[in-house]
Amino acid sequence: MNAIDLTKGKPVTVIGAGLVGAGWAIVFARAGVSVRMTDSSAQVLESAPKLVAQQLERLHSHGLLKESVATILARVSVEPDLKKALDGAIYAQESVLEKADVKRKLMLEIESFGYDDLIIGSSTSGIPASDFGLDLKISPRVLVVHPVNPPYLVPIIELVGSPQTSKETIDWADHFMQALGQSVIRVNEEIEGFVINRLQAVLLREAWTMVADGVCSCEDVDKAIRDGLGFRWSFIGPFETIDLNAPNGVADYAARFGPLFHRIAQSRDQKRPWDEPLIKEVETQRRQFVKQSELNARRDWRDEQLMKFAVHRAKSADK
Amino acid sequence: MNAIDLTKGKPVTVIGAGLVGAGWAIVFARAGVSVRMTDSSAQVLESAPKLVAQQLERLHSHGLLKESVATILARVSVEPDLKKALDGAIYAQESVLEKADVKRKLMLEIESFGYDDLIIGSSTSGIPASDFGLDLKISPRVLVVHPVNPPYLVPIIELVGSPQTSKETIDWADHFMQALGQSVIRVNEEIEGFVINRLQAVLLREAWTMVADGVCSCEDVDKAIRDGLGFRWSFIGPFETIDLNAPNGVADYAARFGPLFHRIAQSRDQKRPWDEPLIKEVETQRRQFVKQSELNARRDWRDEQLMKFAVHRAKSADK
Repeated sequence: MNAIDLTKGKPVTVIGAGLVGAGWAIVFARAGVSVRMTDSSAQVLESAPKLVAQQLERLHSHGLLKESVATILARVSVEPDLKKALDGAIYAQESVLEKADVKRKLMLEIESFGYDDLIIGSSTSGIPASDFGLDLKISPRVLVVHPVNPPYLVPIIELVGSPQTSKETIDWADHFMQALGQSVIRVNEEIEGFVINRLQAVLLREAWTMVADGVCSCEDVDKAIRDGLGFRWSFIGPFETIDLNAPNGVADYAARFGPLFHRIAQSRDQKRPWDEPLIKEVETQRRQFVKQSELNARRDWRDEQLMKFAVHRAKSADK
Repeated sequence: MNAIDLTKGKPVTVIGAGLVGAGWAIVFARAGVSVRMTDSSAQVLESAPKLVAQQLERLHSHGLLKESVATILARVSVEPDLKKALDGAIYAQESVLEKADVKRKLMLEIESFGYDDLIIGSSTSGIPASDFGLDLKISPRVLVVHPVNPPYLVPIIELVGSPQTSKETIDWADHFMQALGQSVIRVNEEIEGFVINRLQAVLLREAWTMVADGVCSCEDVDKAIRDGLGFRWSFIGPFETIDLNAPNGVADYAARFGPLFHRIAQSRDQKRPWDEPLIKEVETQRRQFVKQSELNARRDWRDEQLMKFAVHRAKSADK
């Protein structure tokens, strides 16, 4: 089923019209869905369509849009009043401040409107729905729908319900996100950091520790991924990588390398946090490659590279 | 300095002419260096030039060679006799069986030939040079030069010396590998798994544990990397990623997310190995995506994707 069918022609609402909200607006509008953006700040809301238009122009310049910028942009409107913005909407994606009490307050407000079938996804990268979405009439329809920025380029989405989220809600969000062209993970437990940040966290932890121990430099870690592991990981994940790396597949791989990988895991008992001296060391190393004053220019370069990578991915897509 | 200057026009020797050795032959010959391949198996050695030619044809078909296949192939010769293969060579890359005693025996044989300046790099992914290269006259010239397969596409190389390896040897290998177009990591300690496999190991450990706990599926882990983290990691590493992901750089990022990532690290105390039931579960999940009988076809697909990715990387290369 396509995205329009799943919304039954109804609009979706983007609550919080900053960078994350603008990214979501593009994901929805690009798929043909009407989007209403709302924000408690009039200033943020005023600049939102411009932000969306700029990113759409950039996507267009890389050939990443199937319709004109104007056509897609025409699907995006702004509405300062939250209740009006939600009226008749089938789905709301909230990207307000990353604080549980702010999100809880928003949920109570939405609850007060009395919508019977509105589904509410939160963009939070780390706050479980249980921290803001429990014990309300809307609770079965509240879940985490966590994107990686920008979601119109990086397709992964994590779905994480609270114990009170209904299976129907998660199923609908799954279908809807896939219909929008996203890649969906279902996280079955409100585990800290969900799946994506856990994977990033364990890799970073080992990286920071090796730098702290003088085993290698930050740049060496970056090379190991960028010029090594990242080659395969850019199109197959770590499980498929090892599945293909032993003659008889993943069980064969586990027999060959499981003991080594287990020894590596066991060799790390230290739980040292990223303390001040270590942060200073990493900061110093990084500034040799990108000066503080050049961070923004480098971010522009990164975004260009992301666009080019998205073009490459689209061209060499799975058969 | 280019690769030819660094070899002073002398040839290099590839010891062990299987898949890894053939990959190395391409790296050397592509850079203009003469390569002698040798192997204790006459059969393996006989098919080596064909293996090299096949891979060169494939690179050529993707526009990844600057010279003709014939020109590059003309630099590769075979020599069954180890001593003759090493005679006059400036560098030997050994890719024999991944067993310390086999490598030790090879080192003793090379030692007996009495070459005064031959540098010997080992392709081992996990055996430190201390396990096969100590207490010989050649010890200062023995080090690990670990590639990721295939090295003519995936540029990363780990250099790891034993305590007896000279700094001059490591410096020369560093310059030589860079001149060949590889990306070089210097690992300052013979740490288990070196850098690349440690990073892979910690990520896999978390992945296997989440699958064991039912948090998500293998395919979800693969999506998290392939459709999420791998987007940035395909052109910037994990340190540069976080350096660019907070307004004021990596120290700012550490202040914001350090505590969360530390909690995630601390939340994993279990040291469970990849045991039989878990391996079976992962195997079962993987076979839903690629049947046992289709593994080879999928490997061909992977190799095609790697070629396409290499083409993309070359096109969107760093300014």
